[in-house]
Amino acid sequence: MSDTLTPSAVDTAPEAYPVSARNRVKRVHERGSYDHETVHAILDSAMLCHVAYVIDGQPYATPTIHWREGDMLYWHGSSASRMLRHLKAGTPACLTVSHLDGLVLARSGFNHSVNYRAAMCFGTARLVEDEAEKARALVGVVDRFYPDRSAGLRRITAQETKATTVIAMRIDEASAKIRAKGVGDEPEDMDFPAWAGVIPVRTVIGATETCPKIPAGIERPATLAPYAEGAVLDAALLATQRIYEG
Amino acid sequence: MSDTLTPSAVDTAPEAYPVSARNRVKRVHERGSYDHETVHAILDSAMLCHVAYVIDGQPYATPTIHWREGDMLYWHGSSASRMLRHLKAGTPACLTVSHLDGLVLARSGFNHSVNYRAAMCFGTARLVEDEAEKARALVGVVDRFYPDRSAGLRRITAQETKATTVIAMRIDEASAKIRAKGVGDEPEDMDFPAWAGVIPVRTVIGATETCPKIPAGIERPATLAPYAEGAVLDAALLATQRIYEG
Repeated sequence: MSDTLTPSAVDTAPEAYPVSARNRVKRVHERGSYDHETVHAILDSAMLCHVAYVIDGQPYATPTIHWREGDMLYWHGSSASRMLRHLKAGTPACLTVSHLDGLVLARSGFNHSVNYRAAMCFGTARLVEDEAEKARALVGVVDRFYPDRSAGLRRITAQETKATTVIAMRIDEASAKIRAKGVGDEPEDMDFPAWAGVIPVRTVIGATETCPKIPAGIERPATLAPYAEGAVLDAALLATQRIYEG
Repeated sequence: MSDTLTPSAVDTAPEAYPVSARNRVKRVHERGSYDHETVHAILDSAMLCHVAYVIDGQPYATPTIHWREGDMLYWHGSSASRMLRHLKAGTPACLTVSHLDGLVLARSGFNHSVNYRAAMCFGTARLVEDEAEKARALVGVVDRFYPDRSAGLRRITAQETKATTVIAMRIDEASAKIRAKGVGDEPEDMDFPAWAGVIPVRTVIGATETCPKIPAGIERPATLAPYAEGAVLDAALLATQRIYEG
């Protein structure tokens, strides 16, 4: 594309996304990277993303569940939803995943910050109309999170397939931005008598609530082991993605 | 506005946001609400939001920290950032906060879901140019999260104030969408021999990492009590917002 900036040596590594004005990390650029491994790890560690799209000049940031197969991102929903009806036509979109990892309290207001991992992915969202691709995706949305689960479920009906819209977006460009360190105070502020530090946060799995109508003898499957009580959600989602990739 | 739909009796309660084609919850509308209390509680329970905006037809979903004063949402960043330079002019934006509360595993793939709380807010983002409003906002971004903290910090410099852009957006319209329940299988699927249940997730506070250069005798302030190790982040953020509101 015409606005692609000259990438640095790092950016041209084979496993990195191209860099343009759209995805170049402008602020605190030492926090930015474009390599597949970093971007994919942030995407794969989350179930929830936000998709930005535009209708008649109005932007929307819509939360949804995403999953990834290679460079392809998928999300889905009811065929009746506002977002999905709009995206059918093929439209520029931005899918962002963000993890909050810690609150950073500095000796000055200016240097307060957060630790985080975020990935922004750009591409053209399109409706998945090919029947085989759609069928694969509707297995993927279950099995990517819950290993081998779909084979043991009540089979999807034609009506349910029709009622579900699947959207795909190839990642044309992406950037990752990470802050993972301690307090970044100015050297001249170090003696200022204010407390400073990092308060880490993490998202963890709670105690499973089995559906009360499950008959005795049907246990939570062993394949859900990554979602053990107390486990960190990021890690469970990354582990199940790796299982899904085989 | 011309596209405002006729609101229901509930929607016209004095403390609710107006409903239009932009914010009406279309899917599973029994999960939707427009009242201030519900929308604000979702916003106030989070530090991280995603702001959607458009540059030359390209949508962006940018993660950032937000805070709220009444019906006004604020976010900020470097004066050099792509998003903030664009929003200076006053532009339609959508600020969304989402909480993932649980993974819902059903007896069919179709009824797999998540428990969540999400709020989408629409308005026109504008640059805060009034010096007094900007100064108040730069105190607010600290004190809203960390009660009474800014008074004890190294004072902000003119240079830092200049380098920081603050954006404000009055909430013109908003909607909240919440799923907080068990498995939603079809009645005819109840006897299908698959395990089903809810795996709850929550974001919790970890052990504080005091900056290693803090001299002995400077302790973590008691005002940070809501951020105790093991506390749920949502609750700590809601508690500190209530303290901030006095």
